Amino acid sequence: MANFQVNILGCGSATPSTRHMPACQVIDFRDRLFMIDCGEGAQLQMMRQRLKFSRLSHIFISHLHGDHFLGLPGLLSTLALHEKGGSVTIHTFAEGVRVLREIMAVFCRETSYEIIYDVITPGRAVIFDDHALTVETFPLYHRVPCVGFKFSEKPKARHLRGDMIRFHGIPVAQLEDIRRGADFVKPDGTVIPNSWLTTDPDPSVSYAYCSDTMYNPSVADDVRGVDVLYHESTYADDFAAKAAPRGHSTAREAARIAAAAGVGRLVLGHYSKAYDSDEPFLREASEEFPDVIAAREGMKIDLL
Amino acid sequence: MANFQVNILGCGSATPSTRHMPACQVIDFRDRLFMIDCGEGAQLQMMRQRLKFSRLSHIFISHLHGDHFLGLPGLLSTLALHEKGGSVTIHTFAEGVRVLREIMAVFCRETSYEIIYDVITPGRAVIFDDHALTVETFPLYHRVPCVGFKFSEKPKARHLRGDMIRFHGIPVAQLEDIRRGADFVKPDGTVIPNSWLTTDPDPSVSYAYCSDTMYNPSVADDVRGVDVLYHESTYADDFAAKAAPRGHSTAREAARIAAAAGVGRLVLGHYSKAYDSDEPFLREASEEFPDVIAAREGMKIDLL
Repeated sequence: MANFQVNILGCGSATPSTRHMPACQVIDFRDRLFMIDCGEGAQLQMMRQRLKFSRLSHIFISHLHGDHFLGLPGLLSTLALHEKGGSVTIHTFAEGVRVLREIMAVFCRETSYEIIYDVITPGRAVIFDDHALTVETFPLYHRVPCVGFKFSEKPKARHLRGDMIRFHGIPVAQLEDIRRGADFVKPDGTVIPNSWLTTDPDPSVSYAYCSDTMYNPSVADDVRGVDVLYHESTYADDFAAKAAPRGHSTAREAARIAAAAGVGRLVLGHYSKAYDSDEPFLREASEEFPDVIAAREGMKIDLL
Repeated sequence: MANFQVNILGCGSATPSTRHMPACQVIDFRDRLFMIDCGEGAQLQMMRQRLKFSRLSHIFISHLHGDHFLGLPGLLSTLALHEKGGSVTIHTFAEGVRVLREIMAVFCRETSYEIIYDVITPGRAVIFDDHALTVETFPLYHRVPCVGFKFSEKPKARHLRGDMIRFHGIPVAQLEDIRRGADFVKPDGTVIPNSWLTTDPDPSVSYAYCSDTMYNPSVADDVRGVDVLYHESTYADDFAAKAAPRGHSTAREAARIAAAAGVGRLVLGHYSKAYDSDEPFLREASEEFPDVIAAREGMKIDLL
């Protein structure tokens, strides 16, 4: 269990290959796992990377291309065979919900857990929100309707200063309010400001996922200031002319988005199988934005 | 290209695991590949085992459980991305055709090759027949309708005896008939019997695939005398009581079918993930039938 860790399960494009698996990531966020895209083989990658099925709670599908979706039927069937409890919410476009229901009606009539379908639409919306995390969609620019996902951790509790808590004799029952920023009012009416009692909380982190998309400067507005940006880089400069017509980006274009958005770190992925090395992606991207890494299957990126 | 070679792409049951892939085999028969069952990951196993997509011509699905079917959407999409030509014929039950059409309508609207759907029904039927090969279904006994497949090579051409061909001055134009068993009639009407001119052809081989099924002695009648029998052995003796209620067999039961049918060799597979070794399967089966091997991913079994 991690505070906020991005696990790369697949970072290839189009098809599985002996080098890369198709698109899939899992965010390990405290007690739950949030999957983004689900290419064929996602369930096996979860096993290999020891990400427990029992903790999987939400699956976000960016668009309805097979390399981002076709791992779902097998994964959902396997969750049932593993007798997972609780629920899994699948956030996808309406046509994805329809076809998934058709498949499940044939191959997995009964599940030990509840499948909740959340129909998403292209554009900007908050699609998940609880006490700790918000997930928003934003538009991407691909050959079919496609959205990116931005995961934003909510502000955390402030740290109590043990010495001051003891000095002022603050009752345990009030500590939770003080963690949340409340001042302490003594029985005699004296106000002890929160800033005397606490120190700043750990920073809240944010992560944005952009796959698949052609280069579009407006994406920078949607991912502004995130700690980590995953941005597809299907091609390097040598195939730059093919990128936009196919609805994809180069590594250099991904890095330009990262630079314009002022993100903390850039992660590249969704590599075309025309490449047998990360080297051109990293070299070309780093000319535009220095803090860049190339995703690989099995990689874990800790945001905190 | 092989004359008749069975390639094991997956021999696990229920789900992929870090030990086994779900059910999939490919028969490499002269110029074509015939796939039997298509669990998730089949396309990647084809790549790993260097079985060329361009040669894939027919896919036979034994029953509509996910671990035998859910590799199809990804495989068919990938064939299109690889710009495969010609056609692929998919032999499956009507409900499988229906759901596959639904999936392809969303994820793979255009293919470079023709997909031909051949609806099969439970029971005995010839479902493929050409100059060299016949494929027949026969009933299996599982929790859902399920068939086995028997592949029978047709009789081959006889071998010409070069010395006799020259001695009798036989024209080249007649050699093909003589390979097929014709006598030679000299211009003066003298008949030279084929047995003087040829020797026996190479033997024709046959292969039967039984997965998934509970033990049923009638299966032996359907696979009588095949050179190689693949028979599921989901369990060893320790889970014998669970096998039939789940529609599966033990290794010992598979071996009893092999013995009763007088087959040449038995191949075990479809192992439950409760086992981490082939040893109990092989030991118990060999007590009933000596010529037994345990399938593993990557194994190639030459029938000739």
